[in-house]
Formats: sequence, C-alpha cells, structure tokens
Amino acid sequence: MDSLRDQWRAGNTTLGLWASLANPTSAEMLGRAGLDYVCIDNQHGLVDYTTAIGMYPAIAYGGTTPIARVPWNEPGIIGKHLDAGAQGIIVPMVNTAEEAQAAVAACRYPPHGARSFGPAGVAPRYRDYFDNTPDQIAVVPMVETVEALGNVEAIVSTPGVDAIYVGPADLSISLGLPPRNNDDVPEFVEALETIVAACQNHGVVPGIHSSGSLTPRRLEMGFRMITVTADAVALGVGLKAEIAKARSEDGATGSDKMY
Amino acid sequence: MDSLRDQWRAGNTTLGLWASLANPTSAEMLGRAGLDYVCIDNQHGLVDYTTAIGMYPAIAYGGTTPIARVPWNEPGIIGKHLDAGAQGIIVPMVNTAEEAQAAVAACRYPPHGARSFGPAGVAPRYRDYFDNTPDQIAVVPMVETVEALGNVEAIVSTPGVDAIYVGPADLSISLGLPPRNNDDVPEFVEALETIVAACQNHGVVPGIHSSGSLTPRRLEMGFRMITVTADAVALGVGLKAEIAKARSEDGATGSDKMY
Amino acid sequence: MDSLRDQWRAGNTTLGLWASLANPTSAEMLGRAGLDYVCIDNQHGLVDYTTAIGMYPAIAYGGTTPIARVPWNEPGIIGKHLDAGAQGIIVPMVNTAEEAQAAVAACRYPPHGARSFGPAGVAPRYRDYFDNTPDQIAVVPMVETVEALGNVEAIVSTPGVDAIYVGPADLSISLGLPPRNNDDVPEFVEALETIVAACQNHGVVPGIHSSGSLTPRRLEMGFRMITVTADAVALGVGLKAEIAKARSEDGATGSDKMY
Amino acid sequence: MDSLRDQWRAGNTTLGLWASLANPTSAEMLGRAGLDYVCIDNQHGLVDYTTAIGMYPAIAYGGTTPIARVPWNEPGIIGKHLDAGAQGIIVPMVNTAEEAQAAVAACRYPPHGARSFGPAGVAPRYRDYFDNTPDQIAVVPMVETVEALGNVEAIVSTPGVDAIYVGPADLSISLGLPPRNNDDVPEFVEALETIVAACQNHGVVPGIHSSGSLTPRRLEMGFRMITVTADAVALGVGLKAEIAKARSEDGATGSDKMY
Amino acid sequence: MDSLRDQWRAGNTTLGLWASLANPTSAEMLGRAGLDYVCIDNQHGLVDYTTAIGMYPAIAYGGTTPIARVPWNEPGIIGKHLDAGAQGIIVPMVNTAEEAQAAVAACRYPPHGARSFGPAGVAPRYRDYFDNTPDQIAVVPMVETVEALGNVEAIVSTPGVDAIYVGPADLSISLGLPPRNNDDVPEFVEALETIVAACQNHGVVPGIHSSGSLTPRRLEMGFRMITVTADAVALGVGLKAEIAKARSEDGATGSDKMY
Amino acid sequence: MDSLRDQWRAGNTTLGLWASLANPTSAEMLGRAGLDYVCIDNQHGLVDYTTAIGMYPAIAYGGTTPIARVPWNEPGIIGKHLDAGAQGIIVPMVNTAEEAQAAVAACRYPPHGARSFGPAGVAPRYRDYFDNTPDQIAVVPMVETVEALGNVEAIVSTPGVDAIYVGPADLSISLGLPPRNNDDVPEFVEALETIVAACQNHGVVPGIHSSGSLTPRRLEMGFRMITVTADAVALGVGLKAEIAKARSEDGATGSDKMY
Repeated sequence: MDSLRDQWRAGNTTLGLWASLANPTSAEMLGRAGLDYVCIDNQHGLVDYTTAIGMYPAIAYGGTTPIARVPWNEPGIIGKHLDAGAQGIIVPMVNTAEEAQAAVAACRYPPHGARSFGPAGVAPRYRDYFDNTPDQIAVVPMVETVEALGNVEAIVSTPGVDAIYVGPADLSISLGLPPRNNDDVPEFVEALETIVAACQNHGVVPGIHSSGSLTPRRLEMGFRMITVTADAVALGVGLKAEIAKARSEDGATGSDKMY
Repeated sequence: MDSLRDQWRAGNTTLGLWASLANPTSAEMLGRAGLDYVCIDNQHGLVDYTTAIGMYPAIAYGGTTPIARVPWNEPGIIGKHLDAGAQGIIVPMVNTAEEAQAAVAACRYPPHGARSFGPAGVAPRYRDYFDNTPDQIAVVPMVETVEALGNVEAIVSTPGVDAIYVGPADLSISLGLPPRNNDDVPEFVEALETIVAACQNHGVVPGIHSSGSLTPRRLEMGFRMITVTADAVALGVGLKAEIAKARSEDGATGSDKMY
Repeated sequence: MDSLRDQWRAGNTTLGLWASLANPTSAEMLGRAGLDYVCIDNQHGLVDYTTAIGMYPAIAYGGTTPIARVPWNEPGIIGKHLDAGAQGIIVPMVNTAEEAQAAVAACRYPPHGARSFGPAGVAPRYRDYFDNTPDQIAVVPMVETVEALGNVEAIVSTPGVDAIYVGPADLSISLGLPPRNNDDVPEFVEALETIVAACQNHGVVPGIHSSGSLTPRRLEMGFRMITVTADAVALGVGLKAEIAKARSEDGATGSDKMY
Repeated sequence: MDSLRDQWRAGNTTLGLWASLANPTSAEMLGRAGLDYVCIDNQHGLVDYTTAIGMYPAIAYGGTTPIARVPWNEPGIIGKHLDAGAQGIIVPMVNTAEEAQAAVAACRYPPHGARSFGPAGVAPRYRDYFDNTPDQIAVVPMVETVEALGNVEAIVSTPGVDAIYVGPADLSISLGLPPRNNDDVPEFVEALETIVAACQNHGVVPGIHSSGSLTPRRLEMGFRMITVTADAVALGVGLKAEIAKARSEDGATGSDKMY
Repeated sequence: MDSLRDQWRAGNTTLGLWASLANPTSAEMLGRAGLDYVCIDNQHGLVDYTTAIGMYPAIAYGGTTPIARVPWNEPGIIGKHLDAGAQGIIVPMVNTAEEAQAAVAACRYPPHGARSFGPAGVAPRYRDYFDNTPDQIAVVPMVETVEALGNVEAIVSTPGVDAIYVGPADLSISLGLPPRNNDDVPEFVEALETIVAACQNHGVVPGIHSSGSLTPRRLEMGFRMITVTADAVALGVGLKAEIAKARSEDGATGSDKMY
Repeated sequence: MDSLRDQWRAGNTTLGLWASLANPTSAEMLGRAGLDYVCIDNQHGLVDYTTAIGMYPAIAYGGTTPIARVPWNEPGIIGKHLDAGAQGIIVPMVNTAEEAQAAVAACRYPPHGARSFGPAGVAPRYRDYFDNTPDQIAVVPMVETVEALGNVEAIVSTPGVDAIYVGPADLSISLGLPPRNNDDVPEFVEALETIVAACQNHGVVPGIHSSGSLTPRRLEMGFRMITVTADAVALGVGLKAEIAKARSEDGATGSDKMY
C-alpha cells in the first residue's frame, strides 16, 4: 500500500473510514473494505491507547494505511500513536499557525520537528525505519472553528502541513449552527470553499469528515481526503436497514450467505 | 422490561440482535435498538468473559434483556454468564435429551437443576434475586445437527427447556449443504418445519438465527424467537451501503444529522 | 435521575461516592447506594480511560449521576470523559481564574466554551444530545492550595463555574499541615469557611471530599456537594470491621443473608 | 510466608479473605490485611484469567498466600491458575470420590496426578519449582450438596485431598433452604457437623465460607480454614457504615487520616 | 505463506516459535523472525482469549502462520481459537485414540468432525473461508505421557491427525525423570524414537518442543515440526547475555544500532 | 531494597533494565534479574497506564525498584505513575531549567513542588507514606537535544533534580547523526562528556540508556545510572541466538533445564 503522502504527491484523491469502536475485529473489517485509509478516532471515539495498539496491525494487515486522530494537540500522545503504527495524525482544534507548527513538530524528527525517537511498535514493520518512514507520515491539522477559518492561510502555509481536515460539526457550532452538515446554509458552504481554496493555493490537500451520500458533493467541491463513514455510524445504518426489512411484509426468501 | 420467559408465557413473539463484537459501546447501541433481546455471542463472536462483564449492564441499561450464547455446554461457563447478567442462555450443539438436561441443570438452582449460587454481578440489580429471578432465566438449547434433528422430540420434551434455537449454518453443513440459509433446498426447509412442529407440540418456543430479509419468512413459519441480525453483519451492511453511496454520481446534498 | 446542576438550581444538597477502584462491578454497587452522584477518580484512583468507559453506564444504570475527576486541567482528557458519560467534571489544582476559565471552556460547547463535538458514548443515551444535555454538565474546579485560596473570589466568579470542590489533603499540605482533615487547626477551618463564603456570595455550590463521620459537620458548615466516602476507603472500613468481628469472642450466631 | 499446607501440617487454623472484584489494587489491599490466604473467586466473582494473572503477584507481594476457586472441576483451568500463581485450588461442586480424584489429579504432577508441567508465571518466583513447590499446593474440594454430604467419607479419604471447603449457600439450597447461613435450622447444622467430623477422622482440614460475625462460631465448631469475608461484601459493609454516619446527627469532628 | 499442512504435504520440515507472553507486540516480533509458525501457548503461557485475539493478526501480518496450543482437549475453546485465527491446534495430554478423535472432531467441520461454523475473526481474512480453509488447519495432538506412548500407534493412525507434538517435560515426569530434555537417559531417547517411528509409518509429522541448541539433534532424529524457542525463554537468554556483557571488562566500543 | 536516591546518596552506581513490553509477566522477569531498577517505558514502549498498574507490583515483588519514563513532561501523567508505584520518574525532552523545574514540581509535594496527594496504589505498600516516601522518589530529566546541551548547567543546578538521563538516539538526531550510539563521532562523545562533567560539578547523577556491550564504556565515562538493555531488545538478542543455534550443524546434545 502507498502512504497517504505518496498518494497525495501523485495527485490522487483518497477515501477513508473512521474507527470509533475500540475493537481490533471491527478495525480489521474496516481495513479490508478497500479504501485508502482507516483513522482510529482517539478523540471522540471511545478508544484508548491500550486498545489502539492492537488496531494498528489489524488495519495494516488488511492492506490499508492506518492513521490516528489524537485527543489533543499534545506531543506525548502524538508520539505514542506514531510509535504504535499511525502513518498519519489528524490533530483537532488547530486554530493558529503556531498550533499548526506544534502539530508538525510533534510528528517530525529534527531538523523538521521535535519528535522523540523510539519506534517500538513500527520499527519491525519497516526496513530502516528512520531512513524511509518519516517522510511518509501525514500531518493533518483540523480546521473547525471560526478562529481557524480566519487563520486558514497561515495554517495551510505552515511548513510540514500535508492536509487540512474539516470537522463539519464543530465548524457548524462555531458558526452558531447545529452540529450537522449545513450545506443548506450559505455561511457553512462558504467556509468549506474558503478552506478548499486556501489548500489549493498552497499545495495542501483539503480533507473533510463526510458521509456516504455527501461524498460525491465533497468530491465535487474539491476535497481530496474524504472520510466516507464511521464504524459506529455504519453499524447504525445497517441495524436500521436490517430491522426495517425484518418488519416489512415482503421479506426475501432466503439463501443468504452467512460469511 | 419483561423477561423473555414472561413474554413467551404471554404468547409473544420476540425479536433480537446478536452481539459478536467485544465492545460495550456497540453493545449499548444494540440495547437501544428497541428489540426484545440482545445475545452476546461468547462462542463464535470474538468475545471473552472479561469483556462480556461490561456488556451486560450496557445492554440492560438501554432497556433490553441481555442473554448469552456460551461457547459450549459446560456448567462452569454457563454459571459465570448467569452471574454476570445473562437472563437467558443459548447452548450450542445440543444433540440429545441428556445434553439438554445438562443445559437445564447448569441454568437452574436445585431442585430443578444444579446451578451454584453466587450471583455476584446481578444480585445488586434485582431485589431478592433468589426468590424472583431464577424463574425468569430462559434455557435455550440449539438444534443444529442431523443427530439433534433425530432427537428433537426428546430434546423439546426435556423439562426446563424454554425454547430451541436453530443455527442454520451448522444445520446446513450437517445436512451436507453449504453454511447458509438453504431455503431453496427442501431438506433444509423440512428440517426447520420439523423443529417448529416439535416445539409447538410441547409448548416450547421455536427460535432461529435469521437476517433482516429472512425474518418475515421465519415469522410465517412459526418461529417466535428470531435474531434479526448481528452487529458485525450490520456493520458490513452499513459499510457497503455508505461506500456505494460515496461512489455513486448522485450523492445527496447534505444536512445529515451527525448524532 | 436529575442532573447535579438541576439539583443545585433547586437548592438541594447532594451527597456522593468516589470510585477509585478500576472496576465496573464495584462502580455499579456505588451506583446503587442511593446517593446523588458517583465520581470516577481518574486522577489518584488507579483508573484509566479504557476502564472508565465501562464504569459510566454501570453507574448510570443504577440511577445515579456519574461524574469524573480528571487527571489534570487538560481539554483532551476532559472531552474524552464527557463523551464517555461523565455528567460533571471535577478539575484538580485550579489555582487562578484563568485556569477556571480553561476548565469551563473544556466542558462547554461554543459560544460558552470550546469543547469539541462528538458525543460517541453518550449520544445514544439522550434524545437530542446537543439541544438538551450541555446545560446539565457540572463544571467543578478544585480549590486546594494556598494560591487558589488567595484567588477564590476570582475563581468562583468565573462564568460557567457551578461548584467548587475542596481537596482537604492537598489544601492541608499547601498550608504546611499533614494530609488529613485538620479540623482541629484553625487555619484549616478558616480556609474552608472562606471557600464556603465565597461560593455563597456568588451562587456557586461549595463541595468537599469528606468521610462518613465528618459529613454532618461539613453539612453544618454549608457544603452542598459532599463526597461521603470512596470505594477503597469503604473496603478498608468493611475489612477491618469484619476481621475484628471474626477475632472477637462474641460472634453472632448466624442466619446471615449472603446477597 | 508459610504455605497453607505447611500451616495445616503444623496444626494451625487459617483465616482468609475472598477476592471477587476483578482488580489488582483491591487484591493487594486484601493481601496486606494480615490473614493467611486470599482466594481469587474465578467462579462467582466476576474475575477472568486475564485479570487474575495480575492479582496473584499483587497478593503475594503483600506476604499472603494466594489461592483460587476455579469455575469448575476442569483440568485446563486448574492448570492455568496453578501456573499463574495459585498456591491452592478450591474446586466447586465435588459430589463424589471420583470427582475428588479428578480434582487432585489436576493439581499434582505424576505419579500423584496428571498436571501438565509449564509453570510460566510462578517458576521465576521459586527456586527449583519442580523440586520444592508441588508439595505446598493445597487441594480443596467443596462439599456443598446433599449428594456430596452422602459421599463425604469417600471424598475426605481420597488421597491428596488436603481440606474440604463448605459453601453454605449451595448446601442450603440443596437442603431445600434459602441461600444463607441457616444455623437456626438443625438440618443445616448437622450437615456442617458431619463434614467436620469426617474431616477430623481422616486428617483433612475442614473449611468454610463465613462472615466476620460467624467466624467465632465456625472456629468453635472445629473449622480450620475459614474465609472471614469477601471484598464485595466488605465494600458493602463499609459503604453502609459510612453512609449511616454521614446521615447521623452526631458526626465526629475530624482529623481523619486519609491514607 | 503456505499453511503448515501444505508444507508438510510437500515434505518440508517446519521450524517455529512459541508465544507465551500475552502481548501483541512481542507476538509480532516472533511473526517477523522468519520461521514457519508461531504457536500461542494458551495452556502454560499466561495468555487468555481476550489477548490472543489481537496476537493472531499481529503474527499473520508478519507473514508467519499462527497456531495455538489450547489449555485442554475441549471443543469450546478449540473452536474459539480457530475462529480467532489459529491455523493449527496443538492439543495437550492426548492419551488415547478416543481423545485424538475428539481433538480432530473439534477442529473439522462435518462430515470429518463436529466443529461449529462461525469464523467471525478469520472469515474476512480469507476468500470463501468454508470452501478453502478447513483443509489447511493442522490438528496436532500431544503425546507426552507413558499412557500415550503405549497408545501411540492408535493415536497416529486416527484419521485427521496431521502431526504429533512431544512435550519433553511432561513426558519426562511421566517417565519418572525431572522435567527437562533427558537425552542422556536411554528411556527418554527411546520414547522419542518410538514416536518418530510411529509417525513415519503412518504419514504423520513428528513434532517436538525444543531449544536452539537441541534443534539440530531433533532434526537428525527425524522431527519435522520443531519449536526452536519461546519468547519468555529467549527473553531470559537475551537478558543474561546483555547483563553478562555489561559486567565484563571488555565491553565493545559502540555504534550499536538502536532499532 | 534501597531506593535509587538512597543508593546515589551512598555513592553507588546503579544498573537497570527497561520494560517496553506491556506485560506483567515479563516485567516480573526483569524485576528478578538482580539489577537496581526496572523502568517502565510509558513513552516509546507500547505501554499504557492500565497495564502499568499491574507491572509496578510485579517488579517490586521481585525486590527491584520500579521507576517510569512518562510520555511527556505533564503533571497529570507523572502523578498517576507516582500513585501507581513508580519510585522515580524519567522525563523526556527537558530542554530548559524551566522545564526541569516543572518536572521537579510534578514529583514533589509542597513546599518542594506541587504534586497532588492521593497515593492510592502505593500507600498500602509503605507505612506512613507521606512522612517517609517522598524523599525517596528520584527525579530524572532527560537531556537529549542540542538545546538541552546548551542549557545543561542550568538544568543540573535546578533544585530537586537527582539525575540526568541521556537518550543517545534523540541526542544523535539532534546533532544531525543517525539514531544510534555514535561513539565514533567526536561531537557525540563530547556531548556525553559535557553532561557527565556538569552532573559531577553539581552532585547530580549522570545516567544513560545503554546496551550490554556499551555498559563498561559508559561506566568508565562516569555514568552512574545505566540501563543495560530493554526487554524488547533482549528478546531480539535471545531469538537471534536461539535461531542461530537451531540452524547450526553443531547443536548441543541435550539436558536443557526447561525452567
């Protein structure tokens, strides 16, 4: 599998999934769904480091690049996830260029940053880790507040920033809107367009948290790193669909394959 | 919430869900889906006792009856799941009346069985556990082999058996068929009909592992304890649906609610 | 169950328990003891996030409001506990108004704070989480140093602070006293009185870590959020009492109920 | 610390505690309470092997002998607990001499039994494990049914049985009584006396699950292995006592030591 | 990677490692050491199912076949490990042909056995699991007692047995020898030769638990499935070597690579 | 066992081991290897707090002082490890005197620092914890960057700093060298000499991460706190040695002791 950074350098658009259930089994299912990345959500997902350790190889084993959203812009936890197997880091609530620099510093070894060396989990997976891998790690600050929107040019021009990830719910709350995709509200749409434009001007990849049905629209808007759905959301979608079928009059007549 | 046994005594049909992901968060989602039971699959689900302990209250907290499929017809593990919160026990691979008696014995206190007393997990949840609760625990042997089919009358007439649960995959393999719902194969359908008839003759509830689309048909056949889907299956269904939408041309235009 | 904030608005005094053992079973016992809150101690208790995830529903299932003491005044970990089910946050070592503001910001969505949205664990437990729940979360800085004492007026008048929680051991050490309830030392008593008075002047609830025997005195002093005991302390009390009885000459004659 | 077997050979009476909370911290507290043994309850306690592994050294570190009650009379799980650190095994529901022999076989290496060699956890704790330790492991079948009572002579005369442990709740249910210590019922008392007498006649130690207040009476009856209380019970006792004090008018005035 | 069964059909000799530390990180290191299999020791290793779940993909991800030693010859736990990812099962203490048949039955679907279908963990890793995988699972009873030695012809001629695994420690104890490799005792050597000969006569692979230094000798004796060392043993070897170097006078002068 | 601080006051040189595998079993092995300390690596080791809780008593039970490297210079996590049993704290990436002061403050109670009181895990292990233990906790900032090197005099003269720990890999990267022990590069050697000299001038113990073969040289350079090897490194050394023996022609002939 190519790293996200290699794919982006090649001009590709990448689609991914979100792992918010703390579980290596469901993580492995996501890793076999055929998309470009699976992001373990260590912020809002109910996932802690102990469990994430087992989820990284489960995802990678299926041929998909594992990345992490960390709980906060803090170098200790960023380093721990990089050492365990994250090939990219999504950092929440980056509001200024200084915060973007801190995120980069936590992800890159000197002289490009200040990450501490000790890749205990990942070193065995790569030949000559230090020589080959650092260049493949994607640094992805989130832009999800009005303040960040105002600083978006400075954030995207921070050296070492590879992509920007929009959190539509937080951005909406910050705009005084309910926590949803408010594509029917011009202010929301303009905010997304501003972010995409800033990214495009600086060679940075615009990314966003999406849903299945919204993804075509996000592609059209120019986003190139799009999370299609999360495990917990897909579980809800599947449960609803299956229960609806169970309660319908016209059930199918059988021959389901069970695995 | 009424126990399965109370519901069955009242003549109700019960629908349920299957928890095969070892995770209290997804278990709680299943427990809030509005069906009658959630069964933690300690046999084929990748769930162990340590994790199941936290899943029982998560399910019950949502107002749904938690039950367990145990890995095997063994009194030690059956007792442990009853003590932790299972309000019913599905026992795999019960092929004879003797095995059905052993399953009953493991679930009921003397003089109706040989369960050992010590309800460490559930006692705080019930007032006067010993006086009130034992009568609510559902004992559910699985009939899923040709041998069991031949003994089905003896199994269903074993005192203390409340319901029978059919595993269509194992039953199919035992019949020389692939592990699926082989409703297009007369031998498979006749087996199900034989089981339902035996149950109905002896006041035992016929149950079966199903899917959303097959459930109406199973209801029509007379099953009264039907598992509509499993978390891992629903997750797969949801992922497939969301990814398909993401890749379609005609994505919706937004306003998804995020929670 | 009413939230702590609703109870305080109604003028009620609230009693609670402290969960410092990392265990959903003992947490559920605390949640069924009939008090107003159970606080999971993620600072000094040997509890980590992975375990706390299962303790929140276990407490709430028993009808008691779960809250958390976080290890430090850090927005990442505060958000994670709110997402997992804490209905209130006790923040240790808040020494200045600025630190109190940071604590509030981590607990409230914009425009009242800067919490990030994604209530993965709790959203299923509440209808319309964003509309209804944020107003119920209690923000409770700890005042437990001489520095904080000097800034107590500024801390209690910080918008969004609902209660103050006194840590008597840390306050004592800061005053040059041993880590205990030094009610026989005037300086200690005056410190508590100063805090209660400041709270009362600003409509903030005064709270304190207590013991069973000290609670009547704390009530008398005006405290309205009082932690009666901790699980580890109560376990020690119970062990001591039972072992003393075992070693006495005059043991009772039987008929103990076992559950 | 001397092993239980050494203590019994020396004619000592031994008192112990019961660990039914899955937690190394509370286990360590029990191990420092100054009694002779702590038994991890892997049957009714909500404890699984993964957690027990950490509880054995926590107990032993405090200078107390750790033993285990296993979920059932099954050689696989008995061996796993011996390898992890149990210095004695309490086996539930032993009803016949054959079952007692099976329990002994699972605990002793050939030629005295059939235990498999591989003391992965305990070997580092002992010098020359195979030469010195097997002789110290206590084999303790439970007599807790009417059937076992009828076979008690055969059970206590089974070679390799060191002690008998009475489960008063199960014994009571088997006698048609409620699950408690029924010392006011002659049939219950006679059963205990029968077991003590049989043990004394064959040089086997009579043991029983007790409570603090009942222990003096059990000592008087001749029991020499007496579990004084369990962690979950003591926690309940302590909570009740502390909450009662909190609600009384005459609370003490302070100076509680906090640790 | 080829399965053990395919390798054996091709006439290959296979070397492997033993995972007795419950840890996905060390398991992954073993899986990258370049041998043919890694066996998770669920009997004497301090490993439980919850942890093993994460160790299977960690081993397989490194390109090595994961197998399991189960705690006992019990179909419930055998099925759980097959569902989680074991591609072969080593069954301890198989003393008779009946016990060998039971081991085979637990590993194979009808009509070759009685395994229950539900490959929750492994199905996503294989295309068409039921059609392709069952034929690759290796069934490996252990011959490690005098009784088994007497029945070795019957055991190796049991249909479905692929290999025999000798446990030298248990075999030695059963022979009245200390638990070691007693190659200096003719009785021990003859026992190994008897087993190898019986295997060779029936087209079954002879296997044995070995050490690095003994492996050449075991190869010479005809063994074709040889476990070279265990993680806990290798850790001890490495610690001893490093500490010895640290204490020597003539330490090297540097330039160690750290990963 | 004497604390590190007591040993250093007595002028002793201390050797230790590094625990980077999250596992109480291997931690206990390290604790029985006879060196002076075992450091749990919570930064680069794949260890989280939940697991570390069980590793502290496992190490101490074997008679060795447990210490911790924390993920970052953050008071919340430092306090949690001190409460769980760390008798010393290694703090990564301390670059200035201010950062060294912060590290000291997080480790010491007032008036020497700002640690919060609540030694839940360790209080039972010590009599009168507050009176006796704080003086034994070792505070050990890491000097591992060019910036820290420039500030080394200020760092070592910060009151409360007991030792300095050099991370050769990070120091090398910061110097523009590959992450190894670059003893063949004068700049690297001079950096070590500068640190040792600064320590010696201020009565601070110089420490360093080493390997077995490098330790004699580090002793000669004046280091007095030397980590000889890590569990993951020793495991690799042992695996390599055992596999090499297995593949050699001249294997030994037997009689290996298995435990």
